[in-house]
Amino acid sequence: MPSLPTARVSLKGAKTLRRGTPWVYRTELTEPPATDTPGAVVAVVDPQGNPIGQALYARRSPLALRLLTRKGPNEEKVDDAFFIRRLEAALARRAVLPGRDGLRLVHGEADLLPGFFVDRYGQGLTVQTLSEGMDARKEMLARALVERTGVSHVVCRDDASGRDFESLPREVRLLHGEGSARFTYHEGDNRFDVDLLGDMKTGAFLDQVDNHLRAGELGRGEALDCFSYHGGFALALAKHCTSVLAVEQDAKAASRIQSNAEANGRANVKVENGNAFDVLRRFDQEGRRFDTIVLDPPGLAKRREGLATALRAYHELNLRALRCLKPDGLLVTCSCSGKLDRQGFESMVLDAAADAKRPVQILERRGAGLDHPVLAGLTETEYLKALYVRAL
Amino acid sequence: MPSLPTARVSLKGAKTLRRGTPWVYRTELTEPPATDTPGAVVAVVDPQGNPIGQALYARRSPLALRLLTRKGPNEEKVDDAFFIRRLEAALARRAVLPGRDGLRLVHGEADLLPGFFVDRYGQGLTVQTLSEGMDARKEMLARALVERTGVSHVVCRDDASGRDFESLPREVRLLHGEGSARFTYHEGDNRFDVDLLGDMKTGAFLDQVDNHLRAGELGRGEALDCFSYHGGFALALAKHCTSVLAVEQDAKAASRIQSNAEANGRANVKVENGNAFDVLRRFDQEGRRFDTIVLDPPGLAKRREGLATALRAYHELNLRALRCLKPDGLLVTCSCSGKLDRQGFESMVLDAAADAKRPVQILERRGAGLDHPVLAGLTETEYLKALYVRAL
Repeated sequence: MPSLPTARVSLKGAKTLRRGTPWVYRTELTEPPATDTPGAVVAVVDPQGNPIGQALYARRSPLALRLLTRKGPNEEKVDDAFFIRRLEAALARRAVLPGRDGLRLVHGEADLLPGFFVDRYGQGLTVQTLSEGMDARKEMLARALVERTGVSHVVCRDDASGRDFESLPREVRLLHGEGSARFTYHEGDNRFDVDLLGDMKTGAFLDQVDNHLRAGELGRGEALDCFSYHGGFALALAKHCTSVLAVEQDAKAASRIQSNAEANGRANVKVENGNAFDVLRRFDQEGRRFDTIVLDPPGLAKRREGLATALRAYHELNLRALRCLKPDGLLVTCSCSGKLDRQGFESMVLDAAADAKRPVQILERRGAGLDHPVLAGLTETEYLKALYVRAL
Repeated sequence: MPSLPTARVSLKGAKTLRRGTPWVYRTELTEPPATDTPGAVVAVVDPQGNPIGQALYARRSPLALRLLTRKGPNEEKVDDAFFIRRLEAALARRAVLPGRDGLRLVHGEADLLPGFFVDRYGQGLTVQTLSEGMDARKEMLARALVERTGVSHVVCRDDASGRDFESLPREVRLLHGEGSARFTYHEGDNRFDVDLLGDMKTGAFLDQVDNHLRAGELGRGEALDCFSYHGGFALALAKHCTSVLAVEQDAKAASRIQSNAEANGRANVKVENGNAFDVLRRFDQEGRRFDTIVLDPPGLAKRREGLATALRAYHELNLRALRCLKPDGLLVTCSCSGKLDRQGFESMVLDAAADAKRPVQILERRGAGLDHPVLAGLTETEYLKALYVRAL
C-alpha cells in the first residue's frame, strides 16, 4: 500500500482533534502534506509524530483538515468503499423517521461525511458540498445515492456562499436525471411542490419540518405566522387553528404560500405580503390579538459583530409577539443564527417575557429534527433553536 | 370591602417581583403583614409604598410571600372563585394532551397556583401542597377538582420533605372517596397500576411519561434500562426493541417491573435486581453491548455542596453507558437534580462522550412533558433534563 502524505498539527490542534472536534484550521497545521491532489486523504500526526488518524486535506480553505477517522491507514483504508459505508450508515439512521419523503439524508460532519449534505424531496435529491474532499467525490456519491434511494434526479446545489470560504466554485447542475427537477414532498398531511433547480435555497427548510408539525399539534384559535416563506408553519397550523394569517415580505414567496394553501385545501390561510416587524408593531398598537404566533425570522445575527443589533431586533419581535397573544396564547419562537447561542437566545426571550409583564410558561425547547443531528464537540453544527412558550 | 393586610418588601424584593419571579424570601420582607390567619392574602408594596400586587403570606416559611397577581384588591378579588378560575385555566391548558389519563393537572407556580400540585391517575387524583396558602384551601380545591374531573378519589399526599421547609405537618389522607385508592393509568399502549395511598412517591413519575414514550419510539435492538423503578422506560422500549433488561436496586420495585411487564404482555422484558453502577461497570468490562441504553438515576445532586461528587457519579454512569453502546447505539440520559443546571449536565455528557473516544450525535434535548411547564423567571421550577444522543 502506498503510504499517505502526512500532515503535522500543533499541540493545540492535536488536543482539539483528540477531544472529538474534527476540524483543524490552517493556523494549527505546522507541516502541510506534500500533495496537490484535490481532496487528498492524509495521515495526521501530532508534534511528536504520534498518529491521530486520517483526514481530508483542503488546499485552499482556512479549514485545512477534516478528520475522517481516528484509525490509521493500516487499520482502515479510506477509499470509495469507506465513504459509501458512511453513506449507508447515514441512510440507515433515518429509519427512525419512517414515511418521511422530505428529509435530510446526510448532515455533514454529524454523519461523519464532512461538508457533505443531502436532502430528499420526494423523488429528487439535492447535494450540497462544502469541502474540497467531498467535492472531489460528489459524483461518485451521487451514483451511490441513486442506487440506494431509487430517486430520479440528483441536483448539485453548490451555490451557497460557504463555497467561497472553501475557494470552491459555485454551481447548480444535475448530477443525475434529465430535464426539470420539480418534485412533491410532504410535511405531515400537507404537500409542497419544489423546483430543485429553480428555487432559491432549494425552496424548503427541512430542518424546521419537525417544528412545523409540533406547532401544528399545539396551535389553536387565531394564528399568526411571521416570516412564513413558503408557508411550512402556516399550513401546519391550519389543521387545528380556526384561521392563519401568514406574513411574508417576498412577493414571490407570498404567492407561493397562497398556492400551497389552495393545493392543500387550507381555505383558512390568508397571506399578507408585508414586513413582519411592521405588521407586529401595527397589531400591537391596534390591539389585535392572536391565540398562536410563530416567529421564524431569517438569521438576524450572521456575524458576531452584529450580535448586539440582532439581539435588539429579536427582542423587539418577541416582545411584540408576546403582547399580541391572548391569555394562554402560544408563542413558537425560533432563531437560526449560529452566532447566537441557545443560552443567549433563551435569555432574550425571557427578557421579552419580563418586559411583557405577563407570566410565561416554557413548554419545550427544540432544535432541528432528528435528521439534522448536532455533532458533540462541534458547536458550529448547532444553529437552530426553537422555544415553545405560553403567555398566561 | 375590608382592606387587606399589607406586606412591605425591600427594593431587591420589589425588583425581583417586577421581573416576574413570584417569590419573596423573609430576608426581603421589611414589614410583615399584621395577620395571623393561615394562608392570608396580603397586599404587597415596595419601599415607597407603591403597590406591586397581591400575594399569599406564609407565617413560618423562609419563603414568606408568593405573588398571586400584579393586580390590586380593587381590580381583582382573591377569593375562592379566583383560585377556581385558575384551576379551570390549568385544566383547560391540558386540552393539548387528549387521551392522557396519567398526567399532571396543576403544576404549582407555573400554573399560577403556588405550591399546589395535582396529578391524575385514571379515576384518582393526588394533591400535594407546599405552601401554607394553598394548604388552607386544599379541601375547597379538592371539591372543585372532583366536580370538574369526575374522579372517584382525591388523595392528599402531603408527605414530602418539602413540607418541613414550610413548617407544614406531613400527612397522607383521602380528601374525597372511600376505602382503598388503587387505579390504572396508561403511558401510550402500556397500563400501570398505582396505589395512591400506599405507594412511595405515588408510584410513578409523570414528568417522565413523554420521555418514556419518545425513548420507546426511538429505541431499537437490545436495550438496557438503568434505574428502572416501576419500568416506565423499560415497558415503552419493549415495543420496538428485541429485548429489554431493566436494572433496579429496590427489590419491591424490581418485582413491580416484572408484574407490570407481565400485565402488558411484554415477554421481552427481563429484570435484574441490582445496582446500576455495578451492572454497568460489569457490562463494560465483560464487553457486553447494547443498541439502546436509558439512564434515569435518582437525583444525585440534591444539595449544591454535593455537586462535584454528583458530577463524578453522573460522568461515570454516562461514560460506562457510552462504552456499552454498539455502533449507532442510542443513549437516553436524564438528570432530575435541580442543582445541576442544563448546561452543566450537557457539559458532563459531552465530556463523557469525548472520554469514550467515539463521535457522538446530539439528537434531542427534552425536559418534563407539556403538563409540567417551567415558569419563566423561576428556574427552581426546572429540574428535569433529558439528552438523546447517538454514539457512532
